[in-house]
Amino acid sequence: MNLNIVLFEPEIPQNTGNIARTCVLTGCKLHLIRPLGFSLDEKHLKRAGLDYWKDLDLTIYDSYDELREKYKDSTFYFSTTHAKNSYHEVNFKPGDFIVFGKESAGLPDRIRESDPESGIRVPMINTTTRSLNLSNTVAIIAYEALRQMDFPNMK
Amino acid sequence: MNLNIVLFEPEIPQNTGNIARTCVLTGCKLHLIRPLGFSLDEKHLKRAGLDYWKDLDLTIYDSYDELREKYKDSTFYFSTTHAKNSYHEVNFKPGDFIVFGKESAGLPDRIRESDPESGIRVPMINTTTRSLNLSNTVAIIAYEALRQMDFPNMK
Repeated sequence: MNLNIVLFEPEIPQNTGNIARTCVLTGCKLHLIRPLGFSLDEKHLKRAGLDYWKDLDLTIYDSYDELREKYKDSTFYFSTTHAKNSYHEVNFKPGDFIVFGKESAGLPDRIRESDPESGIRVPMINTTTRSLNLSNTVAIIAYEALRQMDFPNMK
Repeated sequence: MNLNIVLFEPEIPQNTGNIARTCVLTGCKLHLIRPLGFSLDEKHLKRAGLDYWKDLDLTIYDSYDELREKYKDSTFYFSTTHAKNSYHEVNFKPGDFIVFGKESAGLPDRIRESDPESGIRVPMINTTTRSLNLSNTVAIIAYEALRQMDFPNMK
């Protein structure tokens, strides 16, 4: 497995769908933290055309602490617009975790501030416009990590 | 302006919306080639919540040839899964054009084969799953180009 992508309380099903597709196509494991803003039962997945869902390596957690406890020896990064470091200044390695907040509010202060040195942001032009779409942010950071790792098992 | 993003006959409004948002946040100009799979009149844009549309540098063309003729001295790259080179092996410079095909069918052979050396692909794991989402592909390639250019006017 190349990377671990964590979505904290994702709200918009199309975003999680696109991120799941990116995970399948890049050998990344997806971790979702409840509550989710959508249903993952068979009927809904089928209706949404998520034909790649069966190939997804997925675990769902009741809380962030449950995930953190399970992987206490792993390296965690947190995607946040408040971070000092840009995502491309980090040296990623296989198995690293990258945590993304919910669409409407990002990550809660509690998680973001638990390890301020591990925050990473994606550079943007300073406008009044809201941030990048969540699935785009995941794709940008994951592919930079994969590029640094020389795209393992990808071609 | 940092880069030129070209969408050839885009079909899905959410994708073009997300790509427009990425363009506004990265100082890229967006070029759309008709036919479009959606309406761009005021009423539809408002309903779709595209509050950033007014900040977008956008031109719409009736054909690819019209665009190509207008920018005949620029460097063009073509995003296609058929390309020999990966997107990260190219040396991008400000003002370069990156052309993306429609969601259902990619770029037509005529455009793709007009300059085979300028094709770029995004590495993926070999599965039966369809390709990355279009807006994710644009974000991945645009941010690699911007990274190489040291994120001009971005922070």
